Amino acid sequence: MIETPYLLFLGDAPDQLAAKVAQGIKDWRPEFAVGQFRMEGCKADMGLTDMSLQQARAAGAKTLVIGVANRGGVISPAWKKVLVTALEEGFDLASGLHNLLKDEPDLVAVAEACGRALHDVRVPEVDYPIANGVKRTGKRVLAVGTDCSVGKMYTALCLEKEMRARGMKADFRATGQTGILITGDGVPLDAVIADFMAGSIEYITPDNDPDHWDIIEGQGSLFHVSYSGVTMALIHGGQPDALVVCHEPTRAHMRGLPGYSLPSLEAVRDMALSLARVANPDVQVVGYAINTQHMSEAEALDYLAGVEADLGLPATDPFRFGAGKLVDALAAI
Amino acid sequence: MIETPYLLFLGDAPDQLAAKVAQGIKDWRPEFAVGQFRMEGCKADMGLTDMSLQQARAAGAKTLVIGVANRGGVISPAWKKVLVTALEEGFDLASGLHNLLKDEPDLVAVAEACGRALHDVRVPEVDYPIANGVKRTGKRVLAVGTDCSVGKMYTALCLEKEMRARGMKADFRATGQTGILITGDGVPLDAVIADFMAGSIEYITPDNDPDHWDIIEGQGSLFHVSYSGVTMALIHGGQPDALVVCHEPTRAHMRGLPGYSLPSLEAVRDMALSLARVANPDVQVVGYAINTQHMSEAEALDYLAGVEADLGLPATDPFRFGAGKLVDALAAI
Repeated sequence: MIETPYLLFLGDAPDQLAAKVAQGIKDWRPEFAVGQFRMEGCKADMGLTDMSLQQARAAGAKTLVIGVANRGGVISPAWKKVLVTALEEGFDLASGLHNLLKDEPDLVAVAEACGRALHDVRVPEVDYPIANGVKRTGKRVLAVGTDCSVGKMYTALCLEKEMRARGMKADFRATGQTGILITGDGVPLDAVIADFMAGSIEYITPDNDPDHWDIIEGQGSLFHVSYSGVTMALIHGGQPDALVVCHEPTRAHMRGLPGYSLPSLEAVRDMALSLARVANPDVQVVGYAINTQHMSEAEALDYLAGVEADLGLPATDPFRFGAGKLVDALAAI
Repeated sequence: MIETPYLLFLGDAPDQLAAKVAQGIKDWRPEFAVGQFRMEGCKADMGLTDMSLQQARAAGAKTLVIGVANRGGVISPAWKKVLVTALEEGFDLASGLHNLLKDEPDLVAVAEACGRALHDVRVPEVDYPIANGVKRTGKRVLAVGTDCSVGKMYTALCLEKEMRARGMKADFRATGQTGILITGDGVPLDAVIADFMAGSIEYITPDNDPDHWDIIEGQGSLFHVSYSGVTMALIHGGQPDALVVCHEPTRAHMRGLPGYSLPSLEAVRDMALSLARVANPDVQVVGYAINTQHMSEAEALDYLAGVEADLGLPATDPFRFGAGKLVDALAAI
């Protein structure tokens, strides 16, 4: 668990896109973002107050989150001075980069000397159990996708926001690096050892109030041959009561797999339902979340109307048009 | 890759069952077993020549395989003297125990001093790639099960034996500890990091001759909520041309999951086929391997006849009645 609130480190980001993690935190947990720290030449801007390390500490920030990724996911030497000083000033550090904070001897030494924590969210920090499949109290919804990177995390965060706005009890459960950095907690599922995948999802979605919703971030796709095992573990470990099927309609082939075309929404619906019923016979698909970022508004609305007509369930782009329809369906369960 | 042939270490095994790994090697790779090493009080006997370490070295043995498991999977202090001496005599050590050889400082020190290898087959020794899903040459058959521990490994080994007896090109591809110790190679899939599961299966079943069969050991079950992700990775990473469905008919519930009943053979057939078609549209189920060890011969034959009548495909207990029917079906692909 990463201590909040954060100072968002944007480093020397070459553009706004390189600061995707910071953007996610700013979009979804603005209350966690005390300010931003930008180095000379930084081309990203979250619209937050620029702060020095001392100013941010004075404003209550506990963790410096590396909100930027550079090519190769390495910890840039140019950042080192700031990171070391941050530890000395009393910050913990959190990073989702491929190269680990814990593999940098200078950071490890200073963190130890100052009694600060280094959080590498790519690496599990918990010894997860093997899943036991015992029915848990509370409700769970899982985002499943036709492909990787079709908007499962944003869909889940939109559901949480809408549910909370309605006064429903709801918690987004992160299963990837960005989600963990946004919320400060979760499981980096793609880095968990095979035997413990489903158990790790049981672990982050324990017994809860009967009217509480865990909104589980999906990963991969049952139809993506590289990562389908991870998706499978989410379906059985998550024991979902409801599934939302996520899709990006303009993609030419499965991400990273030029020889593989995308499955239909019907195929994902049927396959995910059949498998999810093993862990929860009452599971249902409640609707479709369509990522329409590459479509005009007219195209998007037309596409959504088509999905609703063909499949008989609510369809929306939750980020563009709101998650209301999907939450209506979930609230009725 | 573990160097063969082996001296099988039976230690102080309290009974024959405790030496399951040694039994597997003796049953399936008798040519790898130069002899057995038994300590005082050992109650297991593989029917091999009892040898001292020196005798076994003189007979060509290269690796001492720990063929026995004791309660808790620890490396018994009583074994230590033998293991240390074996390293000094020039043996490598191989173990599938939960506790690792590499975590025993004395073994590590002696192995380093003597230039010998410690193989812990529970731990992957390779950096596996992420699966790319590219179609590979050669043929592959995967054993899928209604449950864990229903005979998938024995089925695969029976298929290999029968294929080789017919002069077909065939290699068993181990995906679990026992299978790796039996054959000296393979991937301990349950210990692989999630993102690399399917890639590890691609890695051990690379391009091959068009008439060569990889016979892939299955793990878990699509219907076992603790391990279904591992099974999924085998189905997509293995890219099988053929599936054999394995089942043990007398089981009351899924292994370790009292609340879960077993799926029907039809359910496993349909689900595995639908998912396997993502990676290989031409995949087919060729037959059923039924573990009849808890049935009389009459009961077994009756059950098998029933499966064939109901499902229209060959059914056999390959260990009890031979794998001929299944290999006939595979040879026709």
